[in-house]
Amino acid sequence: MPKLRVHNVAMSLDGFAAGPEQGPENPLGVGGERLHEWIFETRYGRAMIGQEGGTEGVDEAFLRRGDDNIGATVMGRNMFGPIRGEWGDSSWSGWWGDEPPYHHDVFVLTHHPRADLVMKGGTTFRFVTDGLDSALGRAFAAAGGRDVRLGGGAATIRAALDAGLVDELHVAVAPIVLGLGEPLFAGNVAAAYQVTDLTPSERVTHYVLTKSA
Amino acid sequence: MPKLRVHNVAMSLDGFAAGPEQGPENPLGVGGERLHEWIFETRYGRAMIGQEGGTEGVDEAFLRRGDDNIGATVMGRNMFGPIRGEWGDSSWSGWWGDEPPYHHDVFVLTHHPRADLVMKGGTTFRFVTDGLDSALGRAFAAAGGRDVRLGGGAATIRAALDAGLVDELHVAVAPIVLGLGEPLFAGNVAAAYQVTDLTPSERVTHYVLTKSA
Repeated sequence: MPKLRVHNVAMSLDGFAAGPEQGPENPLGVGGERLHEWIFETRYGRAMIGQEGGTEGVDEAFLRRGDDNIGATVMGRNMFGPIRGEWGDSSWSGWWGDEPPYHHDVFVLTHHPRADLVMKGGTTFRFVTDGLDSALGRAFAAAGGRDVRLGGGAATIRAALDAGLVDELHVAVAPIVLGLGEPLFAGNVAAAYQVTDLTPSERVTHYVLTKSA
Repeated sequence: MPKLRVHNVAMSLDGFAAGPEQGPENPLGVGGERLHEWIFETRYGRAMIGQEGGTEGVDEAFLRRGDDNIGATVMGRNMFGPIRGEWGDSSWSGWWGDEPPYHHDVFVLTHHPRADLVMKGGTTFRFVTDGLDSALGRAFAAAGGRDVRLGGGAATIRAALDAGLVDELHVAVAPIVLGLGEPLFAGNVAAAYQVTDLTPSERVTHYVLTKSA
């Protein structure tokens, strides 16, 4: 059975997957970019922003694992971009440039309809206005037997955890405290998950949580 | 300046320092004892319950560090015992037998007055009914220039963090998810703390948080 997987979610020690006051000027919330510093130390992370070099250790391996056997992606609107409300005549096409690193269909949850956006390299952004279940249904169909990755943001992941839909969740705990922000786990059914892998790197501690049978 | 230090607080990956439904039958809440399994693998932890043997690695070192240069302890009532309400004619003298491992004054926060309880080995339990600030004042006086340790439970630690009173906080993150329980960090000023040490062991990940200057 294809799985719904979440990978490379960075969380602060105090449980936040984004800082407070998320918005156009702070897409990850105040201080939230510190959650992701470990990513940009790696080869994978540097390639995402068009840079060469980077480390190739534990963190790199976890980042790559997030792409293995993934046939489609679902994400919340805030992960796609900072724009809120109607799309208007926006030419916003995501954070990832002309050739996003997905190379498959990406279903973006939104309350506002928008036409499909075909990008270079096989990525098509498809905007889903009728909710998470619908997006997941379309994503599993598009994935053709492979797994579906659920991207962020935290609210989207939390909703899927609450509904018991996530099969595997990989969290990278960054050694920072944010004090306020968007919690990853609050009020969900996390107790249904077991930690099946714990691997510290030099920068973060990786936890893989698997839904109990 | 003597410091207020918190040591060896076990927290689940989802941020809980005790499970849900704490009470006489579940002093650590449902599932909460899993937070502390790492302690009873060590020599220090086994000695606490009158057993021999145990590991002597990273976890042991952190447990011992919690005693270094401590002159007095403050703890919440729930850490002292499972009894709620009036003390009555209770002969409860803590979880630790006739000779508790403190060997100094221990100030127990309670709403209900009780006479001092002098134990073997230099530990005296003193019951404080006028709040955390008062208990800390008495503890620093009793510590005679050494540091004061703040024990649990989670609610007591949270209150002290909220008030900006904690200088150093050592958290051991256990690779479990509880789903519900008593949060360690919720709604406090954790952002004022920096992670100054991160040391994984085979069983938990140790974080030392130090208050920013």
